[in-house]
Amino acid sequence: MTASRYDVLGIGNAIVDVIARAEDDFLVAHGMNKGAMALIDEARAKKIYDAMGSATESSGGSAANTIVGVASFGGRAAFVGKVKNDELGRAFTHDIRAARVGFDTPPASDGPSTARCYIMVTPDGERTMNTFLGAAQDLHPKDIDEATIAASAVIYLEGYLWDPPHAKAAFVKAAEIAHKSNRKVALTLSDAFCVSRYRAEFLDLIRKGTVDIVFANESELLSLYETADFDTAAKQMRSEAKLAVVTRSEKGCVVITRDGVEAVQAMPIEKVVDVTGAGDLFAAGFLVGHSHGKDHRTSARLGALAAAEVIQHIGARPAVSLKSLAAENGLATS
Amino acid sequence: MTASRYDVLGIGNAIVDVIARAEDDFLVAHGMNKGAMALIDEARAKKIYDAMGSATESSGGSAANTIVGVASFGGRAAFVGKVKNDELGRAFTHDIRAARVGFDTPPASDGPSTARCYIMVTPDGERTMNTFLGAAQDLHPKDIDEATIAASAVIYLEGYLWDPPHAKAAFVKAAEIAHKSNRKVALTLSDAFCVSRYRAEFLDLIRKGTVDIVFANESELLSLYETADFDTAAKQMRSEAKLAVVTRSEKGCVVITRDGVEAVQAMPIEKVVDVTGAGDLFAAGFLVGHSHGKDHRTSARLGALAAAEVIQHIGARPAVSLKSLAAENGLATS
Repeated sequence: MTASRYDVLGIGNAIVDVIARAEDDFLVAHGMNKGAMALIDEARAKKIYDAMGSATESSGGSAANTIVGVASFGGRAAFVGKVKNDELGRAFTHDIRAARVGFDTPPASDGPSTARCYIMVTPDGERTMNTFLGAAQDLHPKDIDEATIAASAVIYLEGYLWDPPHAKAAFVKAAEIAHKSNRKVALTLSDAFCVSRYRAEFLDLIRKGTVDIVFANESELLSLYETADFDTAAKQMRSEAKLAVVTRSEKGCVVITRDGVEAVQAMPIEKVVDVTGAGDLFAAGFLVGHSHGKDHRTSARLGALAAAEVIQHIGARPAVSLKSLAAENGLATS
Repeated sequence: MTASRYDVLGIGNAIVDVIARAEDDFLVAHGMNKGAMALIDEARAKKIYDAMGSATESSGGSAANTIVGVASFGGRAAFVGKVKNDELGRAFTHDIRAARVGFDTPPASDGPSTARCYIMVTPDGERTMNTFLGAAQDLHPKDIDEATIAASAVIYLEGYLWDPPHAKAAFVKAAEIAHKSNRKVALTLSDAFCVSRYRAEFLDLIRKGTVDIVFANESELLSLYETADFDTAAKQMRSEAKLAVVTRSEKGCVVITRDGVEAVQAMPIEKVVDVTGAGDLFAAGFLVGHSHGKDHRTSARLGALAAAEVIQHIGARPAVSLKSLAAENGLATS
C-alpha cells in the first residue's frame, strides 16, 4: 500500500439544496414524510417549488457535505458526482472546490439539469427533503478513476447512490478498486426509506465485507433489521459489521465493533436551527479521526462536534473552520 | 386620489446575491472598497467568483429587499425590475412572489443573464458588494405600467437605477405618474460611490421636489454635500428636502424635516452577523409606518426594528415575520 493522496474520497449525488422555512401544515398538505427524503420527478419539483416560501440555494448532497466537512477539518478530500454544465452545476463545482476538495468529474453537457433538493425546515429544526435527481442520474462507472480511488485511504459512499441507475455500478467498481489497493470502504445508509428500498442489497454489502465502516442513524438501523428495538438491531449489526457507528440525535452515538457497543455523548448545544447535514457532518468528523489513526471514541467526538456546528445554522455545510473548532475543543486532528 | 392598491411599489435592479465569508485580506488583494458597491463586468465577475469561498445564493437587490420587508410587515407591496428567463431569474421571481409581493415585469428572453451581486461578508459583519448588472441593464420605461404606479401610495426608487442606461427614464416616468396621481415618491441614495457618480442629478431631484422622501446613510449624505461634517450636511438637507431619513448604524437615525432634526435610537442587538440589507430593511419599516399614517418617530422605530433583525443573520431579507416582530415589540403596523 503506497502513501495516500486523499484521506477520504466521497462518491454521491451532486445536489444543490433549495432551502425554505415551512410550517408542519405545509408538509401535511403536500403529503411529505417529515424528516425523510423523497425522490420526485420534474413535475412534482415544479409544484413544490411554486408552493414553497422564499428560498436560498446552497450546495448540498449527503456525501458531498461529508467531504466538505473532512476538508474543513484539514483532511485531504476529493469528491466524485455528476452535475450538468448549467448555473446550478457551476455553483456546485465552485463551492466544493472553494472548500479545497478535489472535484474533477466532467459535467453532463445535455440531459436533465443539475440535481436539486427542496428542503423544508420546520420550526423545530427538522428538515424534510424532496430530491429531483436530474443530472445526478448520469453518474456512471466511467466517472470512477482507478488511480484516484487507489490513492484514497477511505472511500465514502452514500446509500442514495442506489437510486440513480448506473451509480450502483460506479459504487461497486470503486469498492473493488479500493479493496484491491488495501483501502477502506465506508457506507452511509442515508435514509430509512432508502434502506427499505434497498435493504437486501445493503445487508449483502455488509455481510460480504464490501463495506468496512457503516454509518447509520437510529431509524436507518431499525429499518435495516426491521425491528423497533434498538438493542436488538445493534446486536445484529455487531454480529455482521466490522465497524458501525449509529447516531442517535441528542442521545449521541454508539460505536459498534466485534468487541462491543460503546456509547459516546452528543455535544450540548443551545438551539437546533436546522438539522440538515447533521449525519453528514458526523461522518466527516469520524472519518477524519479514523483516517488519522485516532481511537473510535475520539473519532466519534469529532463527529459530534461537527454535527453540533452544522445544526446551529441554516444549511448543510460548516460555517466555520472545523479544524479551528476542534482545536478549541482540545481535539487536534493532526 | 382613489384608494390605493399597494402601500409601496419599488423599482430597482433585480439581483441574486452570491454571499460568501471573506477575510479583510481578500478585499485588499482584489482591490475592493470595503462596505461599498462596485459595478463589475462579466470578466471581473468570473475572476471574483473563482477566487471567493463557498457561497450561498439568495434573492437580493436593494429596493427588492425593501419591498419584501414591506410585505413581511403586512404591507401591500409590488416590485418592478428585470431578470432574464434563466435559473437565477426564476429563483428571483419565485422568492419575491413567495414573499407575497406583486411582481409582473416580463423577464428578458435574450441578452445577458440575471444580475448577480458577489457579496463578501468580513468577520466584523460588514459587506462588500460587486454587482454584475446583467439583465437588470434592460429595465425600460415600457416596463412601467401607469395604472399600477397610479394605484400605489408610495413609489420607492433606488439610486442604483441611475446605473443601467434606460432605467433612469423608467424612474422619471414612474415619478411623473405618481405625482400626477397625488402619490409620493421616495428615493434611497443607495451608496456613497453611487452618489458621487450622480450627485448633480440626485440633488436636482431633491431640489425640484421630484422626490418627497429621501433615504440615506451617513456616508451617502456626506458624499451628497461633499462635506465631512454631519451637522453641516444635515442642515443642508433640511433646507432642501421635504423629508429625509438618515441612518447612522448603531447610532440610530435622524429624521429631517423643515421643522427640525429628530434623532431616533437604534435597536440594541447581540451580534452583527451580516449588515447586508440593513438600510433596505430600515426603509421598509419606515415606509410601512409612513404609509399607515404613523408619526415619523414610530416609523423610524419600525425601520430600526427591521434593520436589527436582518443584520443578525446572513442574507438581506427578513428570516421571520416582521409583522409578528413588530407586534411583539409593541409596534402594531395596522
